[in-house]
Amino acid sequence: MPAPTFDIVAIGNAIVDVLAQADEDFLASVGLTKGAMQLLDEEASTHLYARMGPAREISGGSAANTLAGMAALGARCAFIGQIADDQLGEVFAHDIRANGVAFATPMRPGQPSTARCLILVTPDAQRTMNTFLGASQFLPEQALDRETIASAAILYLEGYLWDPDEPRAAMRAAIDIARRAGRKVAFTLSDSFCISRHRADFRRLIDSGQIDILFANEGELLTLVEGEDFDAAVAEIAAHIPTLVVTRGPHGAIAMVDGVRHAVPAEPITRIVDTTGAGDLFAAGFLAGQIQGRSVADCLHMGAIAAAEIISHYGARPEAKLDELIKARLG
Amino acid sequence: MPAPTFDIVAIGNAIVDVLAQADEDFLASVGLTKGAMQLLDEEASTHLYARMGPAREISGGSAANTLAGMAALGARCAFIGQIADDQLGEVFAHDIRANGVAFATPMRPGQPSTARCLILVTPDAQRTMNTFLGASQFLPEQALDRETIASAAILYLEGYLWDPDEPRAAMRAAIDIARRAGRKVAFTLSDSFCISRHRADFRRLIDSGQIDILFANEGELLTLVEGEDFDAAVAEIAAHIPTLVVTRGPHGAIAMVDGVRHAVPAEPITRIVDTTGAGDLFAAGFLAGQIQGRSVADCLHMGAIAAAEIISHYGARPEAKLDELIKARLG
Repeated sequence: MPAPTFDIVAIGNAIVDVLAQADEDFLASVGLTKGAMQLLDEEASTHLYARMGPAREISGGSAANTLAGMAALGARCAFIGQIADDQLGEVFAHDIRANGVAFATPMRPGQPSTARCLILVTPDAQRTMNTFLGASQFLPEQALDRETIASAAILYLEGYLWDPDEPRAAMRAAIDIARRAGRKVAFTLSDSFCISRHRADFRRLIDSGQIDILFANEGELLTLVEGEDFDAAVAEIAAHIPTLVVTRGPHGAIAMVDGVRHAVPAEPITRIVDTTGAGDLFAAGFLAGQIQGRSVADCLHMGAIAAAEIISHYGARPEAKLDELIKARLG
Repeated sequence: MPAPTFDIVAIGNAIVDVLAQADEDFLASVGLTKGAMQLLDEEASTHLYARMGPAREISGGSAANTLAGMAALGARCAFIGQIADDQLGEVFAHDIRANGVAFATPMRPGQPSTARCLILVTPDAQRTMNTFLGASQFLPEQALDRETIASAAILYLEGYLWDPDEPRAAMRAAIDIARRAGRKVAFTLSDSFCISRHRADFRRLIDSGQIDILFANEGELLTLVEGEDFDAAVAEIAAHIPTLVVTRGPHGAIAMVDGVRHAVPAEPITRIVDTTGAGDLFAAGFLAGQIQGRSVADCLHMGAIAAAEIISHYGARPEAKLDELIKARLG
């Protein structure tokens, strides 16, 4: 097996986040469930946008956020995702490249436009996400750079992208390429509603040993096993996954690695502004630690530090120097 | 004179700000002067964008920022500015309307695209602005809503927009409409380099009594009079202007109103993040106070509070509830 050219290659939605403040009354008036992610078509997206308050645009996408964090921690990263040939596509491409992530998926001409996620941030810092997948849902298998995938130590896949047909087929093909090249496959479950839509697929991937590293939060794990007992859910899934990482919000996170359970508390935070991207950045810190050959305890700690940075400001891309934050804490 | 329908109508650049962090070395490497605003053509803008770090997009434009602040303070506002028929144009239109500002200037089809300002924020919170005027520079006189201008208590004009030919002609026409309707004309000098380009025009407007309220910062005022003595510069300009407001950064601001000088210290701020929009929001607070019939001291204080809010976060549109901030301080 040749030495990897990239530490990680990720396939995910290429999304620009559109963040606005909103109160609970507004969520109720437009029929939204706080904390969830829902998919919108372009018309519904335009309608909600017109009702939202003033917004700011910050590049997002779950796996893309993770790579932005990992690149800041020194990992060699490549991203695969579909943008349209429009201004939001230019914004997404600029930002991910400016984060030091290789990105070569060609723009898709014509409609639909580049994906956007309308994110309503309530005063309690919770985010409610409304995603118009746009061009992102048309990532074709042909857009996969097979060489990049075969030459990256880890292939990282975003559960959200399991919704549309073409990217789901592309991700299945990517798993084959990575496994045949002897690389690791990491997967994030993304969202409880997403799991409800694809539980059977996700369980098949997990139970058949296709996934080496799985990321979930507590609610997602319970949704996956359709259970209510956290420890039982951890045991059930960890039986099929060499490395299972479960984030628990203010209660920190755990990792089950080869049958051994490790835990980390959440980092102390003075001011929680916006929890968008907390899970994405936890994965970034953990995976960067893995690539650096760190202990599981250190990997968890790196995840907690990266997550704490992201929730202290608006947007899901790091603003502070993550490497310096982590060096100050872990050396 | 009929009662005004709007408290204020502003003509300004319709710009989306693209904000990125940068250090002094980066500014030097791309040949930028910290704290200044320069104009770029599309090619230079694209070139600088490619070299900049990851960014966020927040609607901006000097006069538009002022109106966003004034609307938050209860003023009835209308904005006139040219956007293109593109995604950034949609973003600008959404945000200003979501701020409660009436905006009806039709989108301009075809090239150039909507204006953007590449803003590099250094660790000292200074902003260095690089503006591609795009569609904004093609605001035609025909786009003016004469009725709106004639029916607004104040016409507010942005010095920056004096650079391109069409909007300059439109602003001259707007001054005529406002003065004939017996309304007040307010003007912001915007930037020292802008003043250097248009000193003769600006002096003619001021000296001929076309301007009722003039906003400047200390450096702009000195550039305007080509002098070095602040008090002399204030006296020289105040002789022609009923209300002259001069901001002095950390030293607060003064107003000369009908020959009497008033001063306010800067608001104490725990953390200066980004000074983009400080002058725009000072003007917002001051003018909102004028519209509410407040004392000059109160108007200055409102300006200082609004400016302090804006420099505590990224972007030049208010995030906190300005009306509540001011009510807590002034009642």
